[in-house]
Amino acid sequence: MRVAIIGYGGVGRAFVQLLYDKKDYLNREGLQIQVNYIIGKNGGIFNSKGIDLKDLIEYGASERDITKYPSGGSNYVSFEKMLQNRDVDVVIELTPTNKETGEPAMTHIKKSLECGINVVTANKGPILLAYKELKTIAIKNSAILGIGCTTGGALPSINGGIIDLAGADILSIEGVLNGTSNFIINEMENSGCTYLDALKKAQQLGIAETDPSLDVEGWDTATKLVILTNVLMNEQKSLEDLSVEGITKITAEDVKKCLHEGKKYKLLGKAVKENGETHLTVGLEKLDRTHPLYGVDGKNKAVRYISDVLGDLTIIGGASGVIPAGASILRDLINIYRGYRF
Amino acid sequence: MRVAIIGYGGVGRAFVQLLYDKKDYLNREGLQIQVNYIIGKNGGIFNSKGIDLKDLIEYGASERDITKYPSGGSNYVSFEKMLQNRDVDVVIELTPTNKETGEPAMTHIKKSLECGINVVTANKGPILLAYKELKTIAIKNSAILGIGCTTGGALPSINGGIIDLAGADILSIEGVLNGTSNFIINEMENSGCTYLDALKKAQQLGIAETDPSLDVEGWDTATKLVILTNVLMNEQKSLEDLSVEGITKITAEDVKKCLHEGKKYKLLGKAVKENGETHLTVGLEKLDRTHPLYGVDGKNKAVRYISDVLGDLTIIGGASGVIPAGASILRDLINIYRGYRF
Repeated sequence: MRVAIIGYGGVGRAFVQLLYDKKDYLNREGLQIQVNYIIGKNGGIFNSKGIDLKDLIEYGASERDITKYPSGGSNYVSFEKMLQNRDVDVVIELTPTNKETGEPAMTHIKKSLECGINVVTANKGPILLAYKELKTIAIKNSAILGIGCTTGGALPSINGGIIDLAGADILSIEGVLNGTSNFIINEMENSGCTYLDALKKAQQLGIAETDPSLDVEGWDTATKLVILTNVLMNEQKSLEDLSVEGITKITAEDVKKCLHEGKKYKLLGKAVKENGETHLTVGLEKLDRTHPLYGVDGKNKAVRYISDVLGDLTIIGGASGVIPAGASILRDLINIYRGYRF
Repeated sequence: MRVAIIGYGGVGRAFVQLLYDKKDYLNREGLQIQVNYIIGKNGGIFNSKGIDLKDLIEYGASERDITKYPSGGSNYVSFEKMLQNRDVDVVIELTPTNKETGEPAMTHIKKSLECGINVVTANKGPILLAYKELKTIAIKNSAILGIGCTTGGALPSINGGIIDLAGADILSIEGVLNGTSNFIINEMENSGCTYLDALKKAQQLGIAETDPSLDVEGWDTATKLVILTNVLMNEQKSLEDLSVEGITKITAEDVKKCLHEGKKYKLLGKAVKENGETHLTVGLEKLDRTHPLYGVDGKNKAVRYISDVLGDLTIIGGASGVIPAGASILRDLINIYRGYRF
């Protein structure tokens, strides 16, 4: 299986490292994966026989300097050239996310699928904005679109819904989908501190970003929820279709009172089908001990599906960081290799 | 996709009902599934264009009287005839389980795979005794072996480990794999009653069988654990390779004391890799609130994997009964239809 990596940031490099570290596993499973292209903004690396990953890792190239890589690096390597050559089986799209236009990933994904090239992506933008359109292009061109990394990284939320609930109709989705918010609430529970102190600690630990708004105001959760709903409940929702509340207004007193009631606050994304309509919400909810998501603490993520014939399914996991993110790209790639048509 | 059902008990009938109830879903997903054979001990039903499921369900045939079914029922329909005809794509093996010889399922599965026919089975016996051999035959003949229903029915334990952790090495497995035992312990926790009273209640509710030994003495858990370990950790263990303790010796006092410590007893199946060796145990363990399986109550089942690159993954679910069992057969069938080579 010949692969092109578009976008060579942290996840791309972790993916390359993983491909190298996992060579025994891949051999044992009969999976032959070679990286023919790594493409950045101003060029990239090309080797029709597969880039030597050991050399590449030792060289330590980043997106900025891949064009100078001695073995195949060039300003002339581009996405368009790759499409002309038609010499890859899977495009791995890892450029930065844009939730307004989806670009440049939208174009990369569309054009690849139109050429019958399979795509694996961690890029939420195009999937949030145009899943149905992209899926239709994929089917029309007998290509596969793997998006298992877009809704919680290592947490197999999308694939769990597609594969583990195949044959069942999903009636509702509930998810603790944002690790940063969950860590902050948990920190307030454990130490009794204020929201701002918990946020500061999360920032010091590198869990929350300097501008944490996407996470703490609920929009990351909302994005993942919209994707899950569209993919698994056959809807065409957008971020305008749901009410979103974050965790920024929660006080130490609220948290204390909730614990006293034997409950825990969770930032919950919910999609519920009622009378043929699917309603989406993101906001804080108090969960009691009998709720399967009650125990999802720290940076953990989880999703719970209620289905018609396969009952309740709760999936808890979602290790964070570039290695699990790279590993969830590899997971989709292997499942495509094994023939799965998502 | 042309299917033969071997063994027409409760799960087989639930599967047929489900295929009929889910016709809109299957159409929408582009999945064409027809049942060409239903084969019992002394004959069966055959229709090369697909048995009319509506008529069959209305007629209400059971394994004993399928040969009398007016449209295609006959004493001459047999597994051997089906193999000669080579006119099915998937054999669904649902005969009663035998954990000593695996028969008759062992022969059905082997011969089908040898003819290049895919197999989906809920039958633990052959998978417990000869997974590696069967898998090898499957690969050699380009056939697929779906066993997602053998280790917890609707709980996607096997498929979760294969698909959701593809690319990762599984370092340990922990499972609450027996719903009956879990219900009994939970009943003791909730009511403070003795083991025997809780067992009696489980029997009255139809959760425990008249002879509950397989469940409460840990052998059902052990069987599922051995299968999970062999399939997901590339081992060749048998029931002789593990120490098994059930829940029969637990007292009301034990349960009370454990709850007082803020913990809960679970009948846990565990496979842990240490220094290159995998150790298997089944027994009661006290779990504290931070353990992901702490909250798995009632008849619920769950499994927790610790992996190298995809972190922790806990899957909770496993609705019981013939409908979820039939639905988990359908799940494997759909995933094979969608191209997955397990």
